[in-house]
Amino acid sequence: MVEWKNLNELSAFKELETAGRVCLPEVMSGENGAQRVKSYCAPMAEGMVYNYAAKAVDDTVLKGLKKLAEEAQLQEKYAALYNGEVINTGEKRLVLHQLCRGQLGNDVIADGVNKREFYVKQQERIAEFAKKVHNGEITNAAGEKFTTVVQIGIGGSDLGPRAMYIALENWAKKNNKLKMKAAFISNVDPDVAAGVLSNVDVAHSIFVLVSKSGTTLETLTNESFVKNALVEAGLDPSKHMIAVTSETSPLAGNEGYLDAFFMDDYIGGRYSSSSAVGGAVLSLAFGPEVFAEFLEGAAEADKLAKEPDVLKNAAMLDALIGVYERNVLGYETTAVLPYSQALSRFPAHLQQLDMESNGKSVNRFGEPVSYVTGPVIFGEPGTNGQHSFYQLLHQGKNIIPMQFVGFRQSQIGSDVDIQGSTSQQKLCANVAAQIIAFACGKDDTNLNKKFDGGRPSSIIIGDQLTPRSLGGLLAHFENKVMFQGFVWNLNSFDQEGVQLGKVLAKKVLAHDTDGALAVYSDLLAI
Amino acid sequence: MVEWKNLNELSAFKELETAGRVCLPEVMSGENGAQRVKSYCAPMAEGMVYNYAAKAVDDTVLKGLKKLAEEAQLQEKYAALYNGEVINTGEKRLVLHQLCRGQLGNDVIADGVNKREFYVKQQERIAEFAKKVHNGEITNAAGEKFTTVVQIGIGGSDLGPRAMYIALENWAKKNNKLKMKAAFISNVDPDVAAGVLSNVDVAHSIFVLVSKSGTTLETLTNESFVKNALVEAGLDPSKHMIAVTSETSPLAGNEGYLDAFFMDDYIGGRYSSSSAVGGAVLSLAFGPEVFAEFLEGAAEADKLAKEPDVLKNAAMLDALIGVYERNVLGYETTAVLPYSQALSRFPAHLQQLDMESNGKSVNRFGEPVSYVTGPVIFGEPGTNGQHSFYQLLHQGKNIIPMQFVGFRQSQIGSDVDIQGSTSQQKLCANVAAQIIAFACGKDDTNLNKKFDGGRPSSIIIGDQLTPRSLGGLLAHFENKVMFQGFVWNLNSFDQEGVQLGKVLAKKVLAHDTDGALAVYSDLLAI
Repeated sequence: MVEWKNLNELSAFKELETAGRVCLPEVMSGENGAQRVKSYCAPMAEGMVYNYAAKAVDDTVLKGLKKLAEEAQLQEKYAALYNGEVINTGEKRLVLHQLCRGQLGNDVIADGVNKREFYVKQQERIAEFAKKVHNGEITNAAGEKFTTVVQIGIGGSDLGPRAMYIALENWAKKNNKLKMKAAFISNVDPDVAAGVLSNVDVAHSIFVLVSKSGTTLETLTNESFVKNALVEAGLDPSKHMIAVTSETSPLAGNEGYLDAFFMDDYIGGRYSSSSAVGGAVLSLAFGPEVFAEFLEGAAEADKLAKEPDVLKNAAMLDALIGVYERNVLGYETTAVLPYSQALSRFPAHLQQLDMESNGKSVNRFGEPVSYVTGPVIFGEPGTNGQHSFYQLLHQGKNIIPMQFVGFRQSQIGSDVDIQGSTSQQKLCANVAAQIIAFACGKDDTNLNKKFDGGRPSSIIIGDQLTPRSLGGLLAHFENKVMFQGFVWNLNSFDQEGVQLGKVLAKKVLAHDTDGALAVYSDLLAI
Repeated sequence: MVEWKNLNELSAFKELETAGRVCLPEVMSGENGAQRVKSYCAPMAEGMVYNYAAKAVDDTVLKGLKKLAEEAQLQEKYAALYNGEVINTGEKRLVLHQLCRGQLGNDVIADGVNKREFYVKQQERIAEFAKKVHNGEITNAAGEKFTTVVQIGIGGSDLGPRAMYIALENWAKKNNKLKMKAAFISNVDPDVAAGVLSNVDVAHSIFVLVSKSGTTLETLTNESFVKNALVEAGLDPSKHMIAVTSETSPLAGNEGYLDAFFMDDYIGGRYSSSSAVGGAVLSLAFGPEVFAEFLEGAAEADKLAKEPDVLKNAAMLDALIGVYERNVLGYETTAVLPYSQALSRFPAHLQQLDMESNGKSVNRFGEPVSYVTGPVIFGEPGTNGQHSFYQLLHQGKNIIPMQFVGFRQSQIGSDVDIQGSTSQQKLCANVAAQIIAFACGKDDTNLNKKFDGGRPSSIIIGDQLTPRSLGGLLAHFENKVMFQGFVWNLNSFDQEGVQLGKVLAKKVLAHDTDGALAVYSDLLAI
């Protein structure tokens, strides 16, 4: 039987608080450091590894984390989730994104439907549709092939799919898998839609309108923007648009769209990249086979997250070390630093995934918690960041834990040998060097040139960023955030914090304001 | 006479620490809130305003900040800087980026040269070169016009110029000022150069190699990558490349380049957007007149920063409120949230500007400081962020101060009226609504739907994002960071924290490693 307890009620947590701290520059030096790098490593999907040698943990702390995992019943809670319990207590919903990529436990029947079958059916419908677009069975009114797909959505309907597209665009070009270019319209800023429309060939574009409820104001506004542009170009919008929405939304069964593909209330926006939300645009861009590989990588990560031994369960271990850093060591922010430009928007996606899931102050029963919860997440690709904000990470007053990602091979494979090494080797050398610089530091009599070290980082290492490894990477972080939510006893699957702004914005637009809001509205000439 | 003192030696700081705190939900409600929005406003360049009504300050705190500004001699230190004193003590250099856009004080003579004249001369040389490219006097070997400019640089040679280009691209299209498309190659990840080269028309591209020293490894590596591609395409690299560098670098007077334009050691990378580093690419992309307008906006901001009355000096006030939030209220992170997609990379630039300048633990004399210094900076454009990480900003356990930016008009001007309002009005309504939601919160018996408020923000409001307002915005933040560095008694103009990683990366590439670093190198197959 699963018991939901606050973190500070767990005796394992209290033990971790009073246990000794690890001196990172010390443990990471010499042969001991080399041994740590070899042994502090957990397997991930597609041959990737999660290496946490440069985290401020040792065997004692790890033992404490293992105990915490057991006491917090992380495995049992994960099983409850994938077996279809109402884990999203705020909205009284199941949480089923993992079911898009595999059957981890019992059949989940909801609303009279086997949900795994439902998600697979949508994948099959999308695959069929995408193939018809690619082979010219579905064309524009002039009978010409579509060449571009434009996603219209915001938040989870934008960040995840966009980050995944960018992550695979060069890979797809290199491997002759780029069936259609993709573009994205999200922000209600009118310059976004206008700018994207001026850059794409509208007559040969298919637009994917993504809104679960069919009522997201930004998305409907941008849809109108696009429809106007299509009409102005003498085109019939209903021949250029598909919808991704819930079966009960006004967009379903609507003649304004070529077709509609479905998600449901059991997959939150920020977890929807592996549902139809990511499936439509990615299957159109790269072909359904590539999207299927992406799902396979994610499914492998989901299975690994069932591993009972914490030390072999990368997502759980990553989660627990994060909790240790946040609640025991007191660090507020985490930097995500991929050494792969293809992952340039991955940190923005993780920002949503993590901060929207666990940036909360009440537990799943609506009671205030006394401990800190989700960290601030930010990041940019290395080596760019090294020439930018790393100064603060190395020598600033606050310690910012880091999560590196690196791949042995580039995606395109073109390279150049300068001063005895390739660019890819330089890229990898830099991430290795940074981990040691952060952990070990360097003494200097000139304090301006001194590095204290003791700045913890982990690294995920893979062979190459491919659809499979990307799926594994995404699911790793989804599962990490889920496990952290369990430890903090939060409901990671609602987002009440975004509601108040929406309500007030409507008031402003209705000119139903007074006080400070009225003056701001005047200043902004609304 | 200027005296450099640590923050905790200043009596004004001690008074601020012990003074009462402001209850933001209280002061921002009702007529009092409306009055604050009207009066807590400071002028900025190009008619913009800095509104700080929703910051946790009141007249008492502002009086304390004024006293702090005087005691810390912020005006005198700014004057020392623009009059040519050696402000960058670590590297023993003058700090002259403001001199690129105007003469704020005495003539500055260094190395026997009037530096204002030197910077203006480079602007004129760039303008002349750009005009020749635009009118077809300078062409490729086939006598065809160049259509694209590609900047090769990293850190300050990339982030600022790139953010500025993106900020003005749509404006330029709309106003027929887009002379050439620009692209950027920065990361040593070989997929970046390969990806950019596959997207541009190499035969009609001019490449701007930016490296002050002429020895930045990433940049030289990417240059080789590009030169190989040019040679493979049957083109002569020396007819497709210009250099932006120092007069003493190996790139100066080098026959491998069509021409070279100069910067010097007195302008740090992160402050170099208004030097030849930004000047070359922006003048080629938009024409030298547009770059001149950008400099005029920056010059206006620099002049405003000389204003002795703190309440009329937006950059100084913004700086002081930031210090108050960091050192008195104890907030670690600041979010920069532009409600303008054109500013999508502006937060990444500010991340470098701020975190590389003030992410330090020793003062300008190399002594450790006991107080916290520069914050972590992150951000994404609204309304996108609202559907993402704002959850944590509204209901998370830590308070994250925010810096909004908004404009009354869009850049392109195309818009659509849905449900009684345009997209631009929706965009502006959202930022107004967020400020109030963050400051005032909302009570609810369901604590999951309760908002405590008390989350401070400021907003910069302008009419439209144009070259002038962009210049003003950039210089505002440059000056803000400079003033904060003065208050914290830091040297904001060196970056020793980025050195250790470089040294270790070289060791990895030379296979001169042992211990943990050697094992990481193996794992990454270097």
